Amino acid sequence: MEISSKSPVSLYVQLKDYLVQEIKSHRLNPNDQIPSERELCDKFSVSRTTVRQAIRLAINEGLLYSIHGKGTFVAEPKIDQGLIRLTGFEETIKGRGLTPSMKVLEARLISADVHITGLLGLPVGSDIASFKLLGIANNTPMVLFYYYLPTALGLEAIEHVRSYEAQKGWFSFTRYYRETKQVDVGSAHQTFEATVATDEQAVLMEYPPGGALFKVTSIIYTREKEPLEVRYAYYRGDYYKFSISRDVGS
Amino acid sequence: MEISSKSPVSLYVQLKDYLVQEIKSHRLNPNDQIPSERELCDKFSVSRTTVRQAIRLAINEGLLYSIHGKGTFVAEPKIDQGLIRLTGFEETIKGRGLTPSMKVLEARLISADVHITGLLGLPVGSDIASFKLLGIANNTPMVLFYYYLPTALGLEAIEHVRSYEAQKGWFSFTRYYRETKQVDVGSAHQTFEATVATDEQAVLMEYPPGGALFKVTSIIYTREKEPLEVRYAYYRGDYYKFSISRDVGS
Repeated sequence: MEISSKSPVSLYVQLKDYLVQEIKSHRLNPNDQIPSERELCDKFSVSRTTVRQAIRLAINEGLLYSIHGKGTFVAEPKIDQGLIRLTGFEETIKGRGLTPSMKVLEARLISADVHITGLLGLPVGSDIASFKLLGIANNTPMVLFYYYLPTALGLEAIEHVRSYEAQKGWFSFTRYYRETKQVDVGSAHQTFEATVATDEQAVLMEYPPGGALFKVTSIIYTREKEPLEVRYAYYRGDYYKFSISRDVGS
Repeated sequence: MEISSKSPVSLYVQLKDYLVQEIKSHRLNPNDQIPSERELCDKFSVSRTTVRQAIRLAINEGLLYSIHGKGTFVAEPKIDQGLIRLTGFEETIKGRGLTPSMKVLEARLISADVHITGLLGLPVGSDIASFKLLGIANNTPMVLFYYYLPTALGLEAIEHVRSYEAQKGWFSFTRYYRETKQVDVGSAHQTFEATVATDEQAVLMEYPPGGALFKVTSIIYTREKEPLEVRYAYYRGDYYKFSISRDVGS
């Protein structure tokens, strides 16, 4: 591939396109280090500014990532999770050929704040079961989950998550509702937001503070429309995207 | 409302709950300044640490925002946009009782990079029509849109967006396809990601660099499944959330 200042495409865009082709053709693979700035300057006879612009563009597009003092590497393609049929963490991670596991950061009864009791339709100050779980793929923390359940439903789950953790498994609340509690999930209301990692979340997820997080808030109801669970899930923005295909009405 | 160290709920959560109640009861309204740290300390006989924890929690939950050197204020509730039937910018903003307008940052033919031509099914290096538009509600920049269209479809739109801008209106590409080009939109593939504002985006959107952005990538097809448009929309994370209600299959 040639890079030419006579092309109407800017030099740095041409250089980014070169990197795209290297990735698409598998000459560069996920987590490979890309050539140094100096090598790229020499190879294409372009300035260091041009090389840096190309790399910055590729990082912004999620194609590369850089580690301070180490260099620039090819990013893993993001996990693409369907939005219409929302798959569970275990299924999504296994579908990528990775091993899901769970770290229990909290599993206990707490006095709920007014916000959570309001969402669950409980009196202010009610005890609820509170869970904070880290979803891990192989050894990488991917998602931070917070679950809030009425005590009657959640008390038993506190024991379960501990035993699943010990077995290096993933505890599915949906399966627990159906199989243990004989409760059918009826519907869900979900909101999706972009947020940034707090210092605490960054430490837990081994993620830079201020890194982008995709936040999903779910309020889950029984078939009888009773609130069953409030869930907040924070997905690492560098690993996850969500997608939907739809017919567009006129 | 009393705050008591005898309650099982932490003092700072009680104090945050107090702020929630003040907002829900409209004693505090969007963009009102909340009482100073000193006033809250005195009113509830708690430490400044407790007050700061409560305010930090409320900011993290999106209830408050702070401006350095000015104080802490009540946040506007986020715009809640449906995900299943995606409404246009104009309709969404009007639905909130605000006035939508558009600033044209770019509207011209460019040589597309390999990524965009790939998505549009065009030869590498093809000219395409490129648009960068800022969606504004009253005077606040809310969304940064990038549109890429094949030249045959986009050339005329370049003139249109300029004239809509002059009339302080909003240009709907969907309406343009249908009414001017007699092209029916058939389907869309969309992905949703959390990202953070680049320095350039931050300046354009009057948003702090590193602020959270909700990125929606759309590839829009005709009924004949020809790619019609590639669109990137960056929604300010502090103003927008997206929601969906669904039945959950078993």
